[in-house]
Amino acid sequence: MEGTGQPLRRDRGDILFRPGEVACSLYRAETGLLRLTELTQRGRTVTVRHILPGDFFGEEALTCETYRHQAEVLIRSSLRRFEPSDLSGSALRSLLESLGGQLQRLVQAEYDLQTADLRQRIVRYLLELADTPLGSEDPDNRLYVRATHELLAEGTRSTRESVSKVITDLRAAGWIESGYRHITLLDLPALMGLLHSSQAVGAQ
Amino acid sequence: MEGTGQPLRRDRGDILFRPGEVACSLYRAETGLLRLTELTQRGRTVTVRHILPGDFFGEEALTCETYRHQAEVLIRSSLRRFEPSDLSGSALRSLLESLGGQLQRLVQAEYDLQTADLRQRIVRYLLELADTPLGSEDPDNRLYVRATHELLAEGTRSTRESVSKVITDLRAAGWIESGYRHITLLDLPALMGLLHSSQAVGAQ
Repeated sequence: MEGTGQPLRRDRGDILFRPGEVACSLYRAETGLLRLTELTQRGRTVTVRHILPGDFFGEEALTCETYRHQAEVLIRSSLRRFEPSDLSGSALRSLLESLGGQLQRLVQAEYDLQTADLRQRIVRYLLELADTPLGSEDPDNRLYVRATHELLAEGTRSTRESVSKVITDLRAAGWIESGYRHITLLDLPALMGLLHSSQAVGAQ
Repeated sequence: MEGTGQPLRRDRGDILFRPGEVACSLYRAETGLLRLTELTQRGRTVTVRHILPGDFFGEEALTCETYRHQAEVLIRSSLRRFEPSDLSGSALRSLLESLGGQLQRLVQAEYDLQTADLRQRIVRYLLELADTPLGSEDPDNRLYVRATHELLAEGTRSTRESVSKVITDLRAAGWIESGYRHITLLDLPALMGLLHSSQAVGAQ
């Protein structure tokens, strides 16, 4: 698998493909972080899938379709580009495992979105992002996430205003600290406990 | 691809696998309809994925994990069972296209769930089910769907009570007719128009 595929480097903010473009290639992220987004009729950006290191994406190329989403680089990423005809036995199996794993992740994300209230969704998203290259440790070994309120809103089907309110509440509780593009997770046990509280809004 | 895999027939209500069971096999539905469900902490069933004819599922077997969901037969289905080691070049590619397609469907479903209000979600789900083996035409060539309010609730992250209210409203508008496990779609243009109305609750 390694060695096949053309290597690419892309910087934060770069767009790899846009919806409607003919899907000629699929990609694998080697490092970095990307997201696939969709635009609502009202012009709101919704993050529909995250691409972590090891993930393949652009699988529309397998069936010669057009891309359905916009692929945006969130952190400087190294990628490999594949033509569908490049994929041999072991590459196919690696792609398969990646798609299978992402399918499971998406199902879980959909389930979580539907069974959690907004505060839980935001906390869960912060904890997830902490496990990606957007997460890091400060000199005091405290975990932090480089994310704007806008990114959090687009990843939790919310608005910047609602995110700001939740962040303010969490800060008031002493569970996080926040600055520009920077949220420090001060009390991990408390944040994780919130996810398992039964206050979730389960259904309409 | 055809001819490999053991053929199976399963009836409505049969459970093919449950969460936590060791995933030894993956499956492809040839006919019928299945769903994968997850149980919330409060004991509510949530439909997380539908398996249509042609779809593979149980891909946890690719990485020797345990199944994560319950697989339930919604309509008498014929299936094929595969061991991961059975999968040769063309079978791998077929599995790949199936997983890629399902990934896209899930992303779309997640997007739809988040950008639609409950009435739109129920109407969209009815229209989707009408395209599966649960949909059929009556002697007057009217499209109907064999579904209980419970199934609709579990597929739209809702409750039976909310579904009943929406069904009553749609019936009062003359857009559907409904009976036990039977909903007739009387006014397709009106139902489809509802999906594109801008009254959707876009964000919290």
